[in-house]
Amino acid sequence: MDYSLSELTKEVLARAESGEDERIRELFLDEHPGDIAEVINVLDEDDKARIFRLIPDESAPEVLSNVHDSTLTALLAGLTDKEISRAVDELPTDDAVDIMGQLPEESATRVLDLLEEEDKESLRELLQYPEESAGGLMESEYVAVPEGVTVGEAVQELRNRAEDVEQVQNVYAVDGEGKLVGILELWRLTISRDDQMVGPLIDRDFRSVQVDLDQEEVAAIVMRYDLVEVPVVDEDERLVGRITIDDVLDVLEEEATEDISKMAGTGEDDFHEESVLRITVLRFPWLLGGLLGGIASAVLMSTYEVQLSSVIALAFFVPVIMAMGGNVGIQCSAVVVRSLALGELEVYRMGKRLTRELTVALLNGVALSLIIAVATFIWHGDGRLGFVVGIAMFLSVIVAATVGTVTPMVLKRIGFDPALATGPFITTTNDLLNLFIYFSVATILLVRS
Amino acid sequence: MDYSLSELTKEVLARAESGEDERIRELFLDEHPGDIAEVINVLDEDDKARIFRLIPDESAPEVLSNVHDSTLTALLAGLTDKEISRAVDELPTDDAVDIMGQLPEESATRVLDLLEEEDKESLRELLQYPEESAGGLMESEYVAVPEGVTVGEAVQELRNRAEDVEQVQNVYAVDGEGKLVGILELWRLTISRDDQMVGPLIDRDFRSVQVDLDQEEVAAIVMRYDLVEVPVVDEDERLVGRITIDDVLDVLEEEATEDISKMAGTGEDDFHEESVLRITVLRFPWLLGGLLGGIASAVLMSTYEVQLSSVIALAFFVPVIMAMGGNVGIQCSAVVVRSLALGELEVYRMGKRLTRELTVALLNGVALSLIIAVATFIWHGDGRLGFVVGIAMFLSVIVAATVGTVTPMVLKRIGFDPALATGPFITTTNDLLNLFIYFSVATILLVRS
Repeated sequence: MDYSLSELTKEVLARAESGEDERIRELFLDEHPGDIAEVINVLDEDDKARIFRLIPDESAPEVLSNVHDSTLTALLAGLTDKEISRAVDELPTDDAVDIMGQLPEESATRVLDLLEEEDKESLRELLQYPEESAGGLMESEYVAVPEGVTVGEAVQELRNRAEDVEQVQNVYAVDGEGKLVGILELWRLTISRDDQMVGPLIDRDFRSVQVDLDQEEVAAIVMRYDLVEVPVVDEDERLVGRITIDDVLDVLEEEATEDISKMAGTGEDDFHEESVLRITVLRFPWLLGGLLGGIASAVLMSTYEVQLSSVIALAFFVPVIMAMGGNVGIQCSAVVVRSLALGELEVYRMGKRLTRELTVALLNGVALSLIIAVATFIWHGDGRLGFVVGIAMFLSVIVAATVGTVTPMVLKRIGFDPALATGPFITTTNDLLNLFIYFSVATILLVRS
Repeated sequence: MDYSLSELTKEVLARAESGEDERIRELFLDEHPGDIAEVINVLDEDDKARIFRLIPDESAPEVLSNVHDSTLTALLAGLTDKEISRAVDELPTDDAVDIMGQLPEESATRVLDLLEEEDKESLRELLQYPEESAGGLMESEYVAVPEGVTVGEAVQELRNRAEDVEQVQNVYAVDGEGKLVGILELWRLTISRDDQMVGPLIDRDFRSVQVDLDQEEVAAIVMRYDLVEVPVVDEDERLVGRITIDDVLDVLEEEATEDISKMAGTGEDDFHEESVLRITVLRFPWLLGGLLGGIASAVLMSTYEVQLSSVIALAFFVPVIMAMGGNVGIQCSAVVVRSLALGELEVYRMGKRLTRELTVALLNGVALSLIIAVATFIWHGDGRLGFVVGIAMFLSVIVAATVGTVTPMVLKRIGFDPALATGPFITTTNDLLNLFIYFSVATILLVRS
């Protein structure tokens, strides 16, 4: 029976509650590991390890490599070293390394010790690379042949390795020192005669990435050149692994989620996390920052107590000045952050972008200021108040656009993540600046005169 | 000479300005179309078509399919029908359709008429499918064989089609009526003897997508099952095309950009667009909405003029109440929207998510309220004012969390894009609600008593 995803989930959730474990075991028999992983993701934390044990042996490793990080952590805590090492042994090295990376150090050592000497070595090597580098993404399973062999010999090598290497798209051609000299697309091998030399079939104008390249740049290269997999080389151009495009897909999801989480003022774990306490802790610092900014705003406003007392209507326009500054700031910062993430702003000179953002702010600022000035005049019948609110609105929009555009650029220049400058940070900064502008304008134009 | 991307761009920008077109032609000779596309993207709009004509003929079509939409629009406006049809003719059908989709109707008809009858027919068919469906993503080039052939015959078919079909990963097995019966991975074909039957090599437990499936769901399926390409079938299970994973990558980028643009209150074109006027028009409606919300806030506050006049310090805390409500609302809505986009919230019952968000808000709300209450008391030496601000803060956080969590869920249920409920929309709603709460609490606890 091939249950659709949500039916399968509903069914397993119900059976898990009533303890019908044998029925779940049967349900899992015909299901794809990708589907089972989705089910495990939504189970209650306490049930995850128990239900995981009902998965058929041949699917369990792949399920483990497909669940979310928070589910993986829960599972690893509930499984024995032996169970974990069995999964690690079965999986391609890139997935195995991801799982090892989630284990506490001692536990990782014990799991490694349960593996065969050869597997242990290759995993240890991969574990040295930073998780977010090409080395952290790659798998060490690939098919490589010397450039001087025949098609028949290359096919024989493919046959020998077919058990170990999943999703072969390319055979790599290397020289005597293991240096990557070119790529042999599988279809070329397939349609060629066995006694032909591979030399003329090799594509020597290929793209590779260095093992220490950041994963975001790996993703950018794969996208720019429409690759389905990319070979990874060390500093001597020796082939050390390959990155398949499904891992690049995960990187893109991850990076987008990271940017969104920073815009929202939370951590990226928030999106999969289930522990209320951990989520609270992730979000609190952003809120505390906002609170301190808010207290600063209150103190700032209190210095204008005299002005507020004499023209109480000044208080009414505090929300609209804050809201517009906030909105414009977020628009500019989000656009700059996303352009930086998509790799478009590096070459595109930043001064030009600032001009663009300021021109847009100028146009929208004029329109918005006119509307609020006229609305205020009609409402209060007070031309000077309308003038003050309009001028303050215009200046706020320009300042908010400048702060929103420049801050992420500066962060990028000095080596921080520009996405930090979206969301709460920009909004709080703009709140303070804009209140200051508003009350200064009011003091000069309205109260003093 | 292999210039790195940004050097190539700088060089072309400089030569374009000084009109050294022949030098640019030479520079482009050895460059990958992916790199040239990045250069064309950042050129001034007026230069794009002129510089595009300097690209070698064999690279030009691929460059055209790799530039951003806004650049494509500019290029298509500057190129002749003949130049466009040459590119359309060379490209795989999925890329050709994307270009045709950007052309004005008349121009598209003229370009189609320049193609050979056969190509015209297949493009016309593909153009019928909505751009954001599986049919809009797929290409009609693939290799398919009857399930009863030998390996040798399948390889011969591959050889015949090798010219037309790029990046072959799978050969598809079909029955007499063209129905897809299974997938033949290329490596299996490669390592098998020519006189063997393909039957036993066929993987019959495969995933396919219906031609009218939404592109977001196509991407979810490709990710869930770690596919490198997915076959597309019509309602009778007949094979009509295939979607390669590089197109899925583009879909993911697009969807993430779309979500971020809505959080920021702008259109997704904003990220690539260069016309200041068009950007201004994209952003204005969001700002106007915020302005109207702000005016409503001002009117609301004016109804509390008496309270404000008697306790002027009430005005000082308006920014902090607004800021915290805004921050909490964005946190909740962004998390819900992203979870919905990642396909995690459908099965996970929504009530459970609401409980989670409210518990987090409760915990953070208590902490933040205590801090602001104590800070207010220390600052103003007025316990009642501290109490009012604390209570109002707590209620605002709870209300903001509820609105932020429920609104995207409701939008999803009634068939709208939940991402509309992040950013300016949530913030404006929360501003109004929270000001109302704050002044109501103040009226009851402070002013009246």
